[in-house]
Amino acid sequence: MRKVAIIGVGHVGSTTAYTLISKNIVDELVLFDSKENILKAELNDLMDGQMEQDHQVRLIEPNLTELADTDVIIFSAGDISIFEGNPDRFAELNLTKTIVKEWAPKIKESGFKGIILNITNPCDVITQYLQELTGFPRERVFGTGTSLDTGRMKHAVSQKMLVNPSAIDGYVVGEHGESQFVAWSSVRIGGVPITDTLTVEKLDALDMAARDGGWVTFRGKGYTSYGIAIQAARIVEAILNNNYLVVPVSHFHSAEDCYVGSPAKVSRQGISESFPLNLSNDEQKKWQHTIQTIHSMHATI
Amino acid sequence: MRKVAIIGVGHVGSTTAYTLISKNIVDELVLFDSKENILKAELNDLMDGQMEQDHQVRLIEPNLTELADTDVIIFSAGDISIFEGNPDRFAELNLTKTIVKEWAPKIKESGFKGIILNITNPCDVITQYLQELTGFPRERVFGTGTSLDTGRMKHAVSQKMLVNPSAIDGYVVGEHGESQFVAWSSVRIGGVPITDTLTVEKLDALDMAARDGGWVTFRGKGYTSYGIAIQAARIVEAILNNNYLVVPVSHFHSAEDCYVGSPAKVSRQGISESFPLNLSNDEQKKWQHTIQTIHSMHATI
Amino acid sequence: MRKVAIIGVGHVGSTTAYTLISKNIVDELVLFDSKENILKAELNDLMDGQMEQDHQVRLIEPNLTELADTDVIIFSAGDISIFEGNPDRFAELNLTKTIVKEWAPKIKESGFKGIILNITNPCDVITQYLQELTGFPRERVFGTGTSLDTGRMKHAVSQKMLVNPSAIDGYVVGEHGESQFVAWSSVRIGGVPITDTLTVEKLDALDMAARDGGWVTFRGKGYTSYGIAIQAARIVEAILNNNYLVVPVSHFHSAEDCYVGSPAKVSRQGISESFPLNLSNDEQKKWQHTIQTIHSMHATI
Amino acid sequence: MRKVAIIGVGHVGSTTAYTLISKNIVDELVLFDSKENILKAELNDLMDGQMEQDHQVRLIEPNLTELADTDVIIFSAGDISIFEGNPDRFAELNLTKTIVKEWAPKIKESGFKGIILNITNPCDVITQYLQELTGFPRERVFGTGTSLDTGRMKHAVSQKMLVNPSAIDGYVVGEHGESQFVAWSSVRIGGVPITDTLTVEKLDALDMAARDGGWVTFRGKGYTSYGIAIQAARIVEAILNNNYLVVPVSHFHSAEDCYVGSPAKVSRQGISESFPLNLSNDEQKKWQHTIQTIHSMHATI
Repeated sequence: MRKVAIIGVGHVGSTTAYTLISKNIVDELVLFDSKENILKAELNDLMDGQMEQDHQVRLIEPNLTELADTDVIIFSAGDISIFEGNPDRFAELNLTKTIVKEWAPKIKESGFKGIILNITNPCDVITQYLQELTGFPRERVFGTGTSLDTGRMKHAVSQKMLVNPSAIDGYVVGEHGESQFVAWSSVRIGGVPITDTLTVEKLDALDMAARDGGWVTFRGKGYTSYGIAIQAARIVEAILNNNYLVVPVSHFHSAEDCYVGSPAKVSRQGISESFPLNLSNDEQKKWQHTIQTIHSMHATI
Repeated sequence: MRKVAIIGVGHVGSTTAYTLISKNIVDELVLFDSKENILKAELNDLMDGQMEQDHQVRLIEPNLTELADTDVIIFSAGDISIFEGNPDRFAELNLTKTIVKEWAPKIKESGFKGIILNITNPCDVITQYLQELTGFPRERVFGTGTSLDTGRMKHAVSQKMLVNPSAIDGYVVGEHGESQFVAWSSVRIGGVPITDTLTVEKLDALDMAARDGGWVTFRGKGYTSYGIAIQAARIVEAILNNNYLVVPVSHFHSAEDCYVGSPAKVSRQGISESFPLNLSNDEQKKWQHTIQTIHSMHATI
Repeated sequence: MRKVAIIGVGHVGSTTAYTLISKNIVDELVLFDSKENILKAELNDLMDGQMEQDHQVRLIEPNLTELADTDVIIFSAGDISIFEGNPDRFAELNLTKTIVKEWAPKIKESGFKGIILNITNPCDVITQYLQELTGFPRERVFGTGTSLDTGRMKHAVSQKMLVNPSAIDGYVVGEHGESQFVAWSSVRIGGVPITDTLTVEKLDALDMAARDGGWVTFRGKGYTSYGIAIQAARIVEAILNNNYLVVPVSHFHSAEDCYVGSPAKVSRQGISESFPLNLSNDEQKKWQHTIQTIHSMHATI
Repeated sequence: MRKVAIIGVGHVGSTTAYTLISKNIVDELVLFDSKENILKAELNDLMDGQMEQDHQVRLIEPNLTELADTDVIIFSAGDISIFEGNPDRFAELNLTKTIVKEWAPKIKESGFKGIILNITNPCDVITQYLQELTGFPRERVFGTGTSLDTGRMKHAVSQKMLVNPSAIDGYVVGEHGESQFVAWSSVRIGGVPITDTLTVEKLDALDMAARDGGWVTFRGKGYTSYGIAIQAARIVEAILNNNYLVVPVSHFHSAEDCYVGSPAKVSRQGISESFPLNLSNDEQKKWQHTIQTIHSMHATI
């Protein structure tokens, strides 16, 4: 049985659950949320969401003892929508670090032996804090990082160049936040470097478009859900199926002494390999900057 | 190209769009909503929601001329969540009939030649009103009706009897609302009448459980989305693929002179056959009652 | 990990493996076949068959120790194509019973604790023989039985009545062979008994059409593969996902003292419930005849 | 309606049809084959192969008038299995060119306005011959080319490096035959050039392993079916969905004055862009050699 727990079923947690069910990725799903009525609502609505499909997921009421044989915990507590279109990373961190402080000992004491996948923002710092407070091996605690941002970049390129996203090879790296950047120097389409085709100005415009898409969603809905749900579901599938998928997740970089997003190989054991980045001089400066941003945010905890 | 328009992208319309995209049911999707910022947010979030899949749906900005070659319009305008857990069918009707009055002429003048699938509540009356104001043939305008309720009934039976929902043959019929009922006399599991196995009391309790599930969701989230999205997507697929699916949708019953939910065959031409109900005496009374409820509600328009 | 072994990778076993892989039903697949070059060919071709999909199934070389933690064995040894369009059930039985005699002790000694799903023909008798020689609990050994025949009946009805197969509730029961029959008295479409709509002559013609389809396939290709692969994959999925699917499989009927096809509930524990048949007088005679056929065939072993 | 015709339903054509049905890629499928009994067998078996799925594909008997509104013709006539494990490209060409000569005028006169996707070997030469005899625009006639070989290379790399195939960016190019080669100089895993990690000897061994897999399948089964079916289905989906997928198909290179496999963008209009290859000196020699091989084979027609 493939068993997943979701801690926090706001819009992101709920949409991730629906995606896991629709795509037949899990067999058992345990939901936790501090708001009892929302939790009950989601348990019922997700039950309705598997109507008409042969594969029925067992939906389980919250109970810490369930974590002992859970394979993956998705940590998505702390709904960003409370900031109503006006997010402040530090205010957010103040809220979410408290939730980590509450949950980390519970997870630890439950006997949980699986992988923690963190979505909660600020993603890199919160992932690191989760690892620090649980004391779990670093390869078993990681975050969705720049996987969503990489997907958005590919979509922006896809639309500009009229090409399927699957043909685009490349990554957004760094903090899942403002200091992230596209490593354009290594992005290729159909094997051809994108820098052969587009000028720096056009690449910058694409980067802006990709970031802006997220903001348009956030300002309109107060949250973004489908993209992050797709990425989280894909990573959970890679873990459960031991697929060795390469995806830009937030994982520990010992050289930088922090968690940060870059391509890594994901399997049943968690992070099994981190791929070295091949950055241009300019990109290396951006990398240093994003690392500093993460460090200074982490220092405030 | 399989082209679908969604009028109203609140929670239900948005989740239906996500489901249509995930399940690879459409090629082009046109979204309409009175709130421009929400519309733009959904267009962006749904774009993110098709990351990592080979099949890319073309998401189209609202434009009435797009309706001329649209195959199916999903009418999901009028978000019930405004009543915040305290729904009043008449108050709702007052709101949603206005929206129909606004949209029906626009749809008519657009040159639309496809099928209208209505989700907006009160489903039966609003579907009828949409047909009346557009003047489209009755077989080309129908509503999701008791498809969601039937799904919920099957889930309740499934959990009680520990049996896969696909093995349960039977329907909830009547108004999509309080006067609906399960036609228990014809429900079977693995070919065996359920009335052979469960007493009337136990069947009533199951009926209550199924209805209650919807309320628990509604009270907690302020709306229900996954179940209705699944049903709407399934019906849209049946239309586009000309599948002759039998599903309890709200369609016109000439004997009753109104729209009401009962099993019908759905194809590219819309409703191609309505199946006669085989009701017990007791169920026939409930049927008369539900028809009256719909008539009296329709009379207030 | 969902682990399945296939004993016999002729056309049926191979197509079943491809279907299990495409539909993302298994994580690990062990293949056995007496012909080493065919086995290696299938391992390679099936590896190619999972190109371009995220979920990668681990394909495992044949080794009896692998059975110790295998969840389901699909027994599909003994390719019917050797009879080249001129099948003789007794000649076939003579071949396949020998293969059972060879395999049953190996399976037993391997420490296998899962479910055996038999496809090899004559299905009912071979399934029974597999149970007898392994001594496994009867609920853990069953055969695909009349699931394929039921599917074909539904397709024939579907085409005649222009209705989606999912709307047809009913079963073919008895021997998976010439003495099987459709229990027309309980077949319904959209809740309406089919006997209300079609005469006995027309029903007989449909029965003939359904059976004939299988023969047309068999005479042209020397075997039939897609339908049986679909049914086997669906039953394996029901076992692995503990879905309580109701499907007409060949299972032990103590009242008849033999294995025979009728609707039963399938879960992780194997057969968890057999549904009583509601047969007309005429159908009861056919049932007695099919039981006798199975008994007399079993007596020749 | 998405309408596809398959000319030649031997193992490859049949498995491709099954894959198109299972993956919900087509709505209508017309089958053609010179052997009437096999054709009827496949029509029946494929009908059985869509049991239990909501989406029902219309299977259409062979009739040239059906081609007038067909979107894609898959040309898979000429079963290689007749050479029984001892294939001779020239003997094969002698057989298959005759079939092209028979079919090209029929296709032309049918009023077909779609895309021809050729699978029949020798793929590059036969694709070119199909284009020459039909006189269709070159962008509307192309072959599966090195798509299968690229998939096999990715699988070999995947197993050696324990990494998901989706993380491997790179192509096999040239003739779909012995003179093809992997353009290793541009293959990357997780953005890192594979030449940074593996020596030339190890890369050569991987190339051998990938080619050898095909031979093992061919020698054991007399044909290979799953891999080519997956690739053909994927390309058909890209055409029908206008997906701009980049895939190494055999298309016309004006610089080389012949059809040959290299990455190209596939959409509803056929080939809409060919990506320039970035080859090392050594690879450029291999490219010249493969072009010569194709030219000399084409000269024999």
